[in-house]
Amino acid sequence: MLDVYTQISSIPIGYNHPALLKLMSNPNNLSTLVNRPALGILPPENFPDKITESLLSVAPSGMSRVQTMACGSCSNENAYKAMFIWYRNKERGNAAPVDDDLTSCMINKSPGCPDLSILSFMGGFHGRTLGCLATTHSKAIHKLDIPSFDWPIAPFPRLQYPLEEFTRENAQEEARCLEEVEDLIVKWRQKGRPVAGIVIEPIQAEGGDNHASPDFFRNLRNIARKHGAAFHVDEVQTGGGATGKFWAHEHWGMDDPADIVSFSKKLLTGGYYHKDELQADKPYRIFNTWMGDPSKNLLLAEVLNVIRRENLLEEVTRSGKSLMNGLYELQAQYPGILSRARGQGTFCAIDICDDATRNSLLLKARDKGVLLGGCGDKSIRFRPALIFKEYHVHMFLNIFNDVLAQHK
Amino acid sequence: MLDVYTQISSIPIGYNHPALLKLMSNPNNLSTLVNRPALGILPPENFPDKITESLLSVAPSGMSRVQTMACGSCSNENAYKAMFIWYRNKERGNAAPVDDDLTSCMINKSPGCPDLSILSFMGGFHGRTLGCLATTHSKAIHKLDIPSFDWPIAPFPRLQYPLEEFTRENAQEEARCLEEVEDLIVKWRQKGRPVAGIVIEPIQAEGGDNHASPDFFRNLRNIARKHGAAFHVDEVQTGGGATGKFWAHEHWGMDDPADIVSFSKKLLTGGYYHKDELQADKPYRIFNTWMGDPSKNLLLAEVLNVIRRENLLEEVTRSGKSLMNGLYELQAQYPGILSRARGQGTFCAIDICDDATRNSLLLKARDKGVLLGGCGDKSIRFRPALIFKEYHVHMFLNIFNDVLAQHK
Repeated sequence: MLDVYTQISSIPIGYNHPALLKLMSNPNNLSTLVNRPALGILPPENFPDKITESLLSVAPSGMSRVQTMACGSCSNENAYKAMFIWYRNKERGNAAPVDDDLTSCMINKSPGCPDLSILSFMGGFHGRTLGCLATTHSKAIHKLDIPSFDWPIAPFPRLQYPLEEFTRENAQEEARCLEEVEDLIVKWRQKGRPVAGIVIEPIQAEGGDNHASPDFFRNLRNIARKHGAAFHVDEVQTGGGATGKFWAHEHWGMDDPADIVSFSKKLLTGGYYHKDELQADKPYRIFNTWMGDPSKNLLLAEVLNVIRRENLLEEVTRSGKSLMNGLYELQAQYPGILSRARGQGTFCAIDICDDATRNSLLLKARDKGVLLGGCGDKSIRFRPALIFKEYHVHMFLNIFNDVLAQHK
Repeated sequence: MLDVYTQISSIPIGYNHPALLKLMSNPNNLSTLVNRPALGILPPENFPDKITESLLSVAPSGMSRVQTMACGSCSNENAYKAMFIWYRNKERGNAAPVDDDLTSCMINKSPGCPDLSILSFMGGFHGRTLGCLATTHSKAIHKLDIPSFDWPIAPFPRLQYPLEEFTRENAQEEARCLEEVEDLIVKWRQKGRPVAGIVIEPIQAEGGDNHASPDFFRNLRNIARKHGAAFHVDEVQTGGGATGKFWAHEHWGMDDPADIVSFSKKLLTGGYYHKDELQADKPYRIFNTWMGDPSKNLLLAEVLNVIRRENLLEEVTRSGKSLMNGLYELQAQYPGILSRARGQGTFCAIDICDDATRNSLLLKARDKGVLLGGCGDKSIRFRPALIFKEYHVHMFLNIFNDVLAQHK
């Protein structure tokens, strides 16, 4: 099998990488595998060093703190909590909470449990636990029947392709979405549910691989700052190198791109980076029993070594170019089936004429030995591991071409 | 160190157990350690067998299904979702959702995101993600500044000790709480936020090791059934053998104790068991990327072998009796400091005269080599591993006696 989906984008350097097999065979690591600590109260003696050489070695620009978590949903849930805590502390002028705060919160009431909100985007996906789900808007089946919060939802730009032919239209579309973001912030403040944070993916993945320009994100970051909201970039799917940079937001070219960056999947452990001021002011506010898993951190440290040693980000950039060129060619060849080829690095996608054809292509490709995934209403997303080389691209394109030819 | 807290009750059979070290050294298990699958779409070939020999071999009475998750919070969040989905399907007479359901849920509005609630108990703890946190009511610092849901909160019985002296008062207290539960269910139905499920711990752990009688739980289960609400027993802290039975709810002596039982900690993987009717009707409703971790399931299977081979539940019952007898004696000896010794198996606790004394005793015990944890306002909880034998009990009691003597 040629796996171009990699367990929903969560296998960073392929299956059974020799470096990882060696690592897990090392008797020195046995203790980490069998004695999982409660990291929040009894971290292993060398844990700060381990975090420094793994997660902190790839910290996003402007961030020197990281909080590990067990999965992507917990990462976002706790990132939202960090933003709420930060926002309320600002509102209180960093004074201690009063009795009314402490008693009302015990029964889920304001002011202790305040009517704050997180602004998210239509088409976004940030997880499926109740807090995350209130910011997820990709498919109805994810949300149906689950109680939610009255939080604002902005439109995400719907770009027209090819980009170079629609420069003006796309700029207008992005401006429209940004305007709507500001309107919503004002409206929710007036409603008494101020926006404490804005959460967005650098590329909406589950929602259909929707891209926006670096300019859009830079402006959005400024809007967040202007209105006193934290800016949370969710890199659960985009993080870890698949766009050709370790973090997709690096393509925006900013020194101070975000207040919080969450991750999981290819990082093998969940968690989030944050600026100093987003550190909760007291212990046990951001807390749970495990708070991650040092055995996953062991694996991550070795994955990062492999990425550096084998220059995998360059590999991704190279493979990504071949993949995009191949998709452009196929799209020209099968205009009735394919459109909107798009991507960054190997984090690519293409639209299929309709949902039924998409699903049939996915099955036919699988039967020919290529594992792919869908996203959005009718897109196919490509999520190979970072070791996906140009010859893999050609293998894939040949098989995909066969599938399309047979379909026609 | 004598660890009587075991990473917040999450180490089942002690540190570096030879059986676990052997398991993790077995090269056949390497692949499971380095290739974490997306369990919801591509489970390993033998995963159903692995689940049958591990989690399903200790399934609670009446339950033949289990859903694994990565941690305790995700387990409860998804259990709540399962109850909401089940409840709404009942309301719709199992008909398909209409267009209005599917469009309104995308923007967090009813009827698609319905105003349903989960009834929880004051003093309860069910996790710290936003859905769980709306049912957690143990300490203000857990909840402060985090938006919540308007869900009903019932009083948990506050029993008086020693139990045999307060039979009548405690029965009255339990009846009062049950009455309040029914009142709240009616009130929230009238408010338009019907109770889809009731969640409770068999022993409120984080909230102060609060116990109630089997009779209380049996009546509560009946109330849930009478009002068409699902009954969710949260065994994240109580499950795994520490009460002398594998599940604490087994002490209630019921064939059909619950609709959902969630777990984590000593089970090493999170998840929940459920009755057939609580199975979501469609794929991708209860879903995330990892949905647990087969490497944790490997460890659990071996832990269960050890529990059986070494008769650890009997060991726990024996050690628990010695521990309780010792606590009764110390309580008689230090009536100004200790009160309300209580427990089941080795899942025991005792109250200290005040918070400051409690914290001072915890530190002094630690300095003498005993690791203990607090819970509630002024309790100490004992959470040894299942291999805590009678000689460990005596070691602990001697040291604790020294600490108390010095304090006096």
